[in-house]
Amino acid sequence: MVASAGCGCSGIGIPNEAVLLKPERLELEPLTAEAFAPFGEVIQRQGVSPESINYGRTQKYADLARIDTAEGGGETTVHLYRSQAVTLPFRIERMERHLLGSQAFMPLHQQPFPVIVAPPGDDPKVQAIRGFITNGEQGINLHKGVWHHYLISLSGICDYLVIDRAGPQSNCEEWVLDGHWRIYAS
Amino acid sequence: MVASAGCGCSGIGIPNEAVLLKPERLELEPLTAEAFAPFGEVIQRQGVSPESINYGRTQKYADLARIDTAEGGGETTVHLYRSQAVTLPFRIERMERHLLGSQAFMPLHQQPFPVIVAPPGDDPKVQAIRGFITNGEQGINLHKGVWHHYLISLSGICDYLVIDRAGPQSNCEEWVLDGHWRIYAS
Repeated sequence: MVASAGCGCSGIGIPNEAVLLKPERLELEPLTAEAFAPFGEVIQRQGVSPESINYGRTQKYADLARIDTAEGGGETTVHLYRSQAVTLPFRIERMERHLLGSQAFMPLHQQPFPVIVAPPGDDPKVQAIRGFITNGEQGINLHKGVWHHYLISLSGICDYLVIDRAGPQSNCEEWVLDGHWRIYAS
Repeated sequence: MVASAGCGCSGIGIPNEAVLLKPERLELEPLTAEAFAPFGEVIQRQGVSPESINYGRTQKYADLARIDTAEGGGETTVHLYRSQAVTLPFRIERMERHLLGSQAFMPLHQQPFPVIVAPPGDDPKVQAIRGFITNGEQGINLHKGVWHHYLISLSGICDYLVIDRAGPQSNCEEWVLDGHWRIYAS
């Protein structure tokens, strides 16, 4: 099914040098700020001391993600994504990266979703792919250049707020994999 | 109750010239993109044609709000707000404005919340205050300089994602009102 581009812009296929034949289960680790630090920030209250504002009526958990979109004359824009659940097991067939900007996803529902990432670099390895699973409240902000799978939802129709770069230059590259990794129902 | 500043920074009191003695009900209009256009953007799917991305699995409602935080060397940051409901009737006693940046609020719950605003300018009028009520899904992005009440929730504990300016300069001014306007239970 290739009726529409993965990340909404023309991708650059990067052949993967490592073709592994046997399908393997990608274990999904619980998403924590520490484990996710090489890839981006976790948008969550957990572990953050709030500040009391609005005359005591609001607890503010400040500066949970820095939006990094200015490169190449970029600006920051906001989208809503409405996403259908995938069928499990699900093959990881391609990843993408945005070299010019961070990209944040905040769920507007209470369903955990998987976050599949690999470290930045021009020579990504399938063995370096890691999978995380959110706790149903967490959002993420991917650092620019981090390889990631497009948004995967596991249950029904899920809505997300997305904080993205808007700019004149192409900001999406795709890495086509061999489908070695699969996500299974837990 | 002044234990904490309204907007988390030192405010500048602007005396209001019009003191009206009789409390009046501030009617809350349904929030629409058209009615709210002088104040900011409504973050919603309604009225927007989506683009199909992620191999048909996601509908993308693009560019719903432009985040405007660069003035004075500003950057964009993300907060989570956890807000307690106010007691009705609720007096509108002060408004605030951020001259250096836009500010977006996206609810992470399905409860309508009021949005109280007045047009930008150094001489705001109580008579120009308008109240809107969201439909439970809508978020807002306030243009910089728009006078607004701090976040008001009407039901229980409500969570919001906030997209804000981070920068070295003070970016909050308060306008102290006379409490003329009140929000009543509908």
